[in-house]
Amino acid sequence: MMRFQVLQKAADSGRFAGAPARTGLLNLPHGAVRTPAFLPVGTQGTVKAMTSEEVALIGYEMILANTYHLRLRPGDEVIRDLGGLHRFMHWDRPILTDSGGYQVFSLSRLRKLTEEGVEFASPVDGAREFLSPERAIQIQENLGGDVIMVLDECTPYPVTPEEARTSMELTLRWAERCRKAQTRARDQALFGIVQGSVYPELRRECARRLADLDLPGYAVGGLSVGEPKEDLYAGLEAAVAHLPEDRPRYAMGIGTPEDLVDCVERGIDLFDCVMPTRVARNGRAYVRGGRINIRNARYARDPRPLDETCECPTCRHYSRAYLRHLHQSGEILAPRLLTWHNLHFFYQCMVDIRRAVGEDAVGKLRGRWEREAAAFEEPETEGDARAD
Amino acid sequence: MMRFQVLQKAADSGRFAGAPARTGLLNLPHGAVRTPAFLPVGTQGTVKAMTSEEVALIGYEMILANTYHLRLRPGDEVIRDLGGLHRFMHWDRPILTDSGGYQVFSLSRLRKLTEEGVEFASPVDGAREFLSPERAIQIQENLGGDVIMVLDECTPYPVTPEEARTSMELTLRWAERCRKAQTRARDQALFGIVQGSVYPELRRECARRLADLDLPGYAVGGLSVGEPKEDLYAGLEAAVAHLPEDRPRYAMGIGTPEDLVDCVERGIDLFDCVMPTRVARNGRAYVRGGRINIRNARYARDPRPLDETCECPTCRHYSRAYLRHLHQSGEILAPRLLTWHNLHFFYQCMVDIRRAVGEDAVGKLRGRWEREAAAFEEPETEGDARAD
Repeated sequence: MMRFQVLQKAADSGRFAGAPARTGLLNLPHGAVRTPAFLPVGTQGTVKAMTSEEVALIGYEMILANTYHLRLRPGDEVIRDLGGLHRFMHWDRPILTDSGGYQVFSLSRLRKLTEEGVEFASPVDGAREFLSPERAIQIQENLGGDVIMVLDECTPYPVTPEEARTSMELTLRWAERCRKAQTRARDQALFGIVQGSVYPELRRECARRLADLDLPGYAVGGLSVGEPKEDLYAGLEAAVAHLPEDRPRYAMGIGTPEDLVDCVERGIDLFDCVMPTRVARNGRAYVRGGRINIRNARYARDPRPLDETCECPTCRHYSRAYLRHLHQSGEILAPRLLTWHNLHFFYQCMVDIRRAVGEDAVGKLRGRWEREAAAFEEPETEGDARAD
Repeated sequence: MMRFQVLQKAADSGRFAGAPARTGLLNLPHGAVRTPAFLPVGTQGTVKAMTSEEVALIGYEMILANTYHLRLRPGDEVIRDLGGLHRFMHWDRPILTDSGGYQVFSLSRLRKLTEEGVEFASPVDGAREFLSPERAIQIQENLGGDVIMVLDECTPYPVTPEEARTSMELTLRWAERCRKAQTRARDQALFGIVQGSVYPELRRECARRLADLDLPGYAVGGLSVGEPKEDLYAGLEAAVAHLPEDRPRYAMGIGTPEDLVDCVERGIDLFDCVMPTRVARNGRAYVRGGRINIRNARYARDPRPLDETCECPTCRHYSRAYLRHLHQSGEILAPRLLTWHNLHFFYQCMVDIRRAVGEDAVGKLRGRWEREAAAFEEPETEGDARAD
């Protein structure tokens, strides 16, 4: 079963209402994960453009896979019959599967929400699908992840406090049904999800009532759905302050390197985000201080690597000029090399963050990042950012 | 400079009018190439879906790159200024560049052929381009390949004997101009190209007259352009029989594994073909006896590797069911894993062929391949083959 050890705790700076930053070790059936950790997203059973061996080579100890996508194609029973998701995608380290809720609410048309669950049409073949707390658990048991998530209603933004409460209450009832439905608690850790929109009192209450369920871990969901950053952090802090200290805390769908350090300073242990892989396919590379857009004509004859301080294979072997040429030519190698670099960059951010937490120097790290950002030469325009 | 050693020569079976099969070692500025060798095609400075390191890891000692594509994007001067193609694409083994002639004749619209050269419009940006023997050499010197090719007119099919002769005479005049234009004969081996369409007497004459130019190697071009197999081999045999025995012989654009063994038996040393990489992107994998189409529903739950006798990473780590899922989901990992497998398959074919030549057992190898083909379970339909 899962075991979570807090290894080091930063001094409580009192700057934030959450909980102090910490490092830890999350022991799961398929191995140990050093926290704070960032999980690359392997939506359809593959971290896009990468082999599983390459993701492990970078250093990642855990990935996320999407229940919604794998349920629809190739089907969770197919994956179960082939020995489970680890074997299917040749990844022998821990996997976290989400519940599919977020995708049902964001990607599916024709959905119908009831107390029982949510009905929707498969975008793959139009088939009628039904997701309930019990089905979400059953599908995740078929996939066989080390950490599985309760089905929640991902509250839209903006909502009134009344709507947010109604949605939160449903999420709490569903969490309880998920716990009851689970048959593999021995080898799968079920995490609850705190909802409550931008209302700190709801976030607090949700966290407290979930804590009563005594689950092995807790996520904060419904973040970064369009709300201002202050509201995001107010909600996060309210939730974290009322989650049990001995359980891992996971901020779903977060974020940029700056977001990661912001959340770690508030007590978060786990993250996942499509950002590094998605922007790579659009020709964007993370470098110290910002992101560069490899399509930019200024790189056409640039012999330098993406980032001169980076030790990933892309930076060791290939120039910006070559990467730009690949991207402009539509070559598969372009997203491959940019994805590898971005995943390496995020991994190194987490290494730096873990070290900073251990040395009680997160503020110093953040200061260095801010200086690098100020000195950065190619600030992305608004238009660029939206193009992702 | 280039040095070619014939290592082993099969006994002349008398079955073919070409020359006996042989193994050799082609020493070039960037290393040695064991022949007969198959060259993967890196059209735009990348063997599609692969890193250069991976291509080397399979075992390949030489690749081909396309002058036409690299001239148009990113431009041969850009590549020269960045240190040449080897450095640009991080491939430190030998490279052969073609002259661009074949692509001008097959891909460009608005082309105008004169004695001087051929004018065409760039499909990248519409710019007017001009390719002459002198320009073809200049571009290839900028790229910096170990072997460069003369500019030839790729004779269309079908043509009358008169048209074929006119075209062949132009090719011969251009070959001489290429030789005169070359300034880097010290570190680039210029190969001539035998044309002559399906007329053996023209092929013979072209080979003899090219041999008089005393070039370091010779290719047979204008093959597999729609002519029947008998005509292809009659033309090839006529050419090979009159090319100097101490120079490498290269069959351009050939071919399937069966074609490779057919040509080796007629004295060919070098091959290139987009087949293994192109069909991979269409979901096709070479296996013993034939090709399978991974889209086929029969593989949806198939836990076996593509080829149970194969030791490539794709076959060691991933099932047909997973590969089908990736392909159906449009994941980049699908062409990656299928390309790696197909390139490994072709490399192993050449290993088997070289060993068979050394043991004077090419006929035995061909017999085994024929038995495997007869026993093959998923014969491709005509429609399937056309879909490539």
